[in-house]
Amino acid sequence: MTSTKVPFTVSGSGGFWAHYRQTVRETVIPYQWRALNDEVSDAEPSHAIRNFKIVAGLETGEFHGMVFQDSDVGKWIEAVAYSLLETPSPELEALVDRTVDILAKAQAPDGYLNTYFTLKEPGRRWTNLRECHELYCAGHLLEGAIAYAQATGKRRFLEVMLRFVNLIGATFGRGPGQICGYDGHEEIEIALLRLYDFTREPRHLKLAQYFLEERGQDPNFFEQEWERQGHVSHWTGLKTATAETAYFQAQVPIRELPVAAGHAVRAVYLYAAMAHLAKTTGDESLVAACRRLWDNVVQRQMYVTGGIGSTHLGEAFTFDYDLPAETGYAETCASVGLVFFTQHLLELSPDAQFADVIELALYNGILAGMSLDGRRFLYVNPLEVVPEASAGNPDRLHVKARRQAWFACACCPPNLARLVMSVGNYICSQHLGTVYVHQFVSGTTALQGPGLDATLEVQTGYPFEGEVRLVLSGIVPAGFKLAPRRPGWCRRAALTLNGKPLPDAALENGYLSVGGPWVERNVIELSLLLEPEFLVARPEVRSAAGRVAVRRGPLVYCFEEADNGRLLSALSIDVAAGLTVSRELGLPLGAPEITARGRRDEPAKGGALYGPVGPAAGSATQAVTAVPYFLWGNRAAGEMAVWMRRK
Amino acid sequence: MTSTKVPFTVSGSGGFWAHYRQTVRETVIPYQWRALNDEVSDAEPSHAIRNFKIVAGLETGEFHGMVFQDSDVGKWIEAVAYSLLETPSPELEALVDRTVDILAKAQAPDGYLNTYFTLKEPGRRWTNLRECHELYCAGHLLEGAIAYAQATGKRRFLEVMLRFVNLIGATFGRGPGQICGYDGHEEIEIALLRLYDFTREPRHLKLAQYFLEERGQDPNFFEQEWERQGHVSHWTGLKTATAETAYFQAQVPIRELPVAAGHAVRAVYLYAAMAHLAKTTGDESLVAACRRLWDNVVQRQMYVTGGIGSTHLGEAFTFDYDLPAETGYAETCASVGLVFFTQHLLELSPDAQFADVIELALYNGILAGMSLDGRRFLYVNPLEVVPEASAGNPDRLHVKARRQAWFACACCPPNLARLVMSVGNYICSQHLGTVYVHQFVSGTTALQGPGLDATLEVQTGYPFEGEVRLVLSGIVPAGFKLAPRRPGWCRRAALTLNGKPLPDAALENGYLSVGGPWVERNVIELSLLLEPEFLVARPEVRSAAGRVAVRRGPLVYCFEEADNGRLLSALSIDVAAGLTVSRELGLPLGAPEITARGRRDEPAKGGALYGPVGPAAGSATQAVTAVPYFLWGNRAAGEMAVWMRRK
Repeated sequence: MTSTKVPFTVSGSGGFWAHYRQTVRETVIPYQWRALNDEVSDAEPSHAIRNFKIVAGLETGEFHGMVFQDSDVGKWIEAVAYSLLETPSPELEALVDRTVDILAKAQAPDGYLNTYFTLKEPGRRWTNLRECHELYCAGHLLEGAIAYAQATGKRRFLEVMLRFVNLIGATFGRGPGQICGYDGHEEIEIALLRLYDFTREPRHLKLAQYFLEERGQDPNFFEQEWERQGHVSHWTGLKTATAETAYFQAQVPIRELPVAAGHAVRAVYLYAAMAHLAKTTGDESLVAACRRLWDNVVQRQMYVTGGIGSTHLGEAFTFDYDLPAETGYAETCASVGLVFFTQHLLELSPDAQFADVIELALYNGILAGMSLDGRRFLYVNPLEVVPEASAGNPDRLHVKARRQAWFACACCPPNLARLVMSVGNYICSQHLGTVYVHQFVSGTTALQGPGLDATLEVQTGYPFEGEVRLVLSGIVPAGFKLAPRRPGWCRRAALTLNGKPLPDAALENGYLSVGGPWVERNVIELSLLLEPEFLVARPEVRSAAGRVAVRRGPLVYCFEEADNGRLLSALSIDVAAGLTVSRELGLPLGAPEITARGRRDEPAKGGALYGPVGPAAGSATQAVTAVPYFLWGNRAAGEMAVWMRRK
Repeated sequence: MTSTKVPFTVSGSGGFWAHYRQTVRETVIPYQWRALNDEVSDAEPSHAIRNFKIVAGLETGEFHGMVFQDSDVGKWIEAVAYSLLETPSPELEALVDRTVDILAKAQAPDGYLNTYFTLKEPGRRWTNLRECHELYCAGHLLEGAIAYAQATGKRRFLEVMLRFVNLIGATFGRGPGQICGYDGHEEIEIALLRLYDFTREPRHLKLAQYFLEERGQDPNFFEQEWERQGHVSHWTGLKTATAETAYFQAQVPIRELPVAAGHAVRAVYLYAAMAHLAKTTGDESLVAACRRLWDNVVQRQMYVTGGIGSTHLGEAFTFDYDLPAETGYAETCASVGLVFFTQHLLELSPDAQFADVIELALYNGILAGMSLDGRRFLYVNPLEVVPEASAGNPDRLHVKARRQAWFACACCPPNLARLVMSVGNYICSQHLGTVYVHQFVSGTTALQGPGLDATLEVQTGYPFEGEVRLVLSGIVPAGFKLAPRRPGWCRRAALTLNGKPLPDAALENGYLSVGGPWVERNVIELSLLLEPEFLVARPEVRSAAGRVAVRRGPLVYCFEEADNGRLLSALSIDVAAGLTVSRELGLPLGAPEITARGRRDEPAKGGALYGPVGPAAGSATQAVTAVPYFLWGNRAAGEMAVWMRRK
């Protein structure tokens, strides 16, 4: 039923992703290591490694950081693992091994491993699951351990984590003496399902399934826990009116969740685990719930950049079609989680709509989270930036007009790093006799199957160019099909096999299909028309009413002060005048800019704030220039807008 | 130099204000009395009177409410005083007298009167001036006492407050053993200047002057106090990074305040006191500072409705031209304070720009704060309401989609009540031989002066009609001039004297001038062309870019779901098609509606959130109806918008 991921080696030199992977490898991973060790001078100390050293008895001191500080170490190791898989580095491996030594020493005799509770609230383990991220941290460490074992074959970290998993399995469940609970921040479920994929041990699947199925059951665990805590929040020390179960996706059992709601990262992490479980068990009711939630996110609660989360208050979803540009959140981690979620649905059923959303989030909402040089990051990915508003209006304080060095709550940078380093997992999958090419990334993969022993090489200038060259060489059986995605945004796609046009290539669920006849070296050329175009939102999206955005292929564009001057809001775009693609600005990575025609509202005469309407004229038309959204803020600081007024 | 307020008796029957004054008299004042006494079943208990009874030893219990709960009693008595001035009511007067008995019993032997500190923090008097509103409460009680003495001649409450003022005068100052401080919420300054106007005792002026002049001096009192408090906030119990002196308008001495900043109500209360002092002393440097601040508010930080305060976070000003419609604040009290401030500037120099702003705030941002029936109130006066956003997006939780019964923090309803009952103070003023008519309100006034002993009667259907009939009868000297305002919004105004057109009537500082020759009964007819028109904001106002508002005379209009259906954002207005005034809706008070032509964006096809731009067509044009802003939310709940997209 489901398709199987085909590991894909992303090209290390040349191609769009080579830059980002090199940056993560050479800059981000070393930078994050220094950050985790409090060695970055212009960033707040992370204290993450030091916390482990203190628990391990290697240093003395107190716990510092967020309750979930441990998780950053897990995510860093995970990113390193993916990096090692493609670029061996004895030095980096030695760093991880030394870190694992510390983690192993920090582990309690019964397998417990959490620096916050060990140092700060000893004796209070598992007493505040709703708020204190204990299983969340375990999940990220476990993901790191699995990835490291897969990359290097070294099992030491995994053994540490398996001991912890055994303790978790003994602690949680519906049996006598067990805690019938689950974590306030979903993540352990994702990690346990990955563990099961790796170990195939049924108890790992069952533990994941327990956490998922128990969530939201009546009586509600979070309500009971909140009662035990006297209604007092860990975070504020104040009483709360309710346990806020919906914020934690725990107001009803998972199959009954009506719409995407609550904290956006938690939500998509839960949905990702649900989809992973559905993929694993084939549970149709779970598939249906996942599809309903996915449709709600993608059709009603997703920014045009693939960002999700419409408010910084609680970093949360709000309500259908509420996608404010000025005050939205669109956390980098939430888009990463959306990719996880969507990828499982794609593996459940190859349908280009899923790959389209992965592409959208990857190239826009996620990559925007990091500066080109890998030294600065965004937590919030705004659709509109006005530096003086970020500084002067507290409602917009969360919108950073410039990327930041490192955050006290540093979930996003390592999440971005691990995704960039594992982007090869999203390229190809295999189902029966068909190999799907979901994303267009330069690199190679080995294809294996009945009668199949071939290599697929992908060469492309994507996402800036629409030509994708697929070279299939080796032994390919007659019935084999190669199915490259025809993106939903594409109006014209042409396909050739060994130079011969295939005008009648079948299109199924958004995938074109090439069926041979195969020769020794088959060159399939996919040509996607990359036209720039204006986008509009449904009229229900109030923030985009009367506005257009610009897209070219997978890339959403934005307008910056650097090219268009201050007060972008005074510009309006003449849609009828069309769009022009050029490369005169010399943008990084060879990205083209797109030029529209527009007008700037006349400056006001006199000092009055308001006055009678004048003639609609405005100034003469002028060029208005857009650059890819993921590149914003890499030149000068200034205003930025994705949605522009339409004349 | 300055002009003198001429007391004006607003017509009790007929005329726009008669409705509001009757409502305040018959509904709001009794309702608020019940609220202050915790007798309103659907509102949070105020506890304000009970706090005083407990201090007075008449009841037992604990303090409840905000630190400034006492002030509501002062504001209520002030509103009652104005009401009694025009409509005697022995019952109401008896209620006040009984309340004054309680207040007198609650007063400490040394004159101190504050229920919060007496009950909750005994021994901690004057230790947290920055945050705890001690002098603010004193100020409101003092204003009530003055108004009550003026209205009834009864001095008992005033005597109580004079004892308190004596204590305050002994406690605060630059002398040895005195506290060299001032209050975090300005108000005592306003009250002391009113007291001086009433008593003419120099020490009252000097005390007000001390509080004003000391503010923001170096070393900074608030910084010292904050140090003494170990940086811990009274409100949150948490440490703050700074004393936030600018929030309290205390970062620099008052003459150096650069722009309107900090908490909006505090700011305008300070500016009002500054202007009052400038008017009293003729201090030119203070006049200049007031003018600079007023210009900043009115030309850069004021909503088109006369609302001020662009963020709910701190209920504060933000920065120039930042006037977001969705998240703004525009607190009713802040507009009331703007009226106080502006009125002093108007008395300093009769210039119609001041009376224009008073008119704007009165008829729009302030009156909108109360339902037509006087039973529901708004604290926040939004320019855009989407009920599902108020419920579903926490960034907009402060925007109430319906007026509320009573607030735990109930500053606005009594502030509105006292302003409505004292609106007669804003109508006329006299300067040398000229009587200015600033506002057009039906009623009468007695004019006195050298050789002048006349009555001026005003008859008008304003603000819905532009005809204002001024009947001047009695003994009027030859040099006397009557100067009705020619509003800044008015494109055509005509004046007649006893039926004879005066096409050449002088216009000075926005006032027309009629100079006789006077007969026994002079009928001056002012005819202001009340055309509906579209307004635009300066291009610097990002939230209004590409948008228009509708105004007719002094009334700003708004668009409601009740008339235009859901999703107002999908409508755009065809400015060229003009505006039509009609009275088919049967709006309350005989208000006319205004109809524009517009289009509704086509509904989207399919489920996709975003798609390629279609033809610009939209549906056929349709009527789009606007109603006066001050009336919004008086029919059905639903969406509301002041600024609408311009086609």
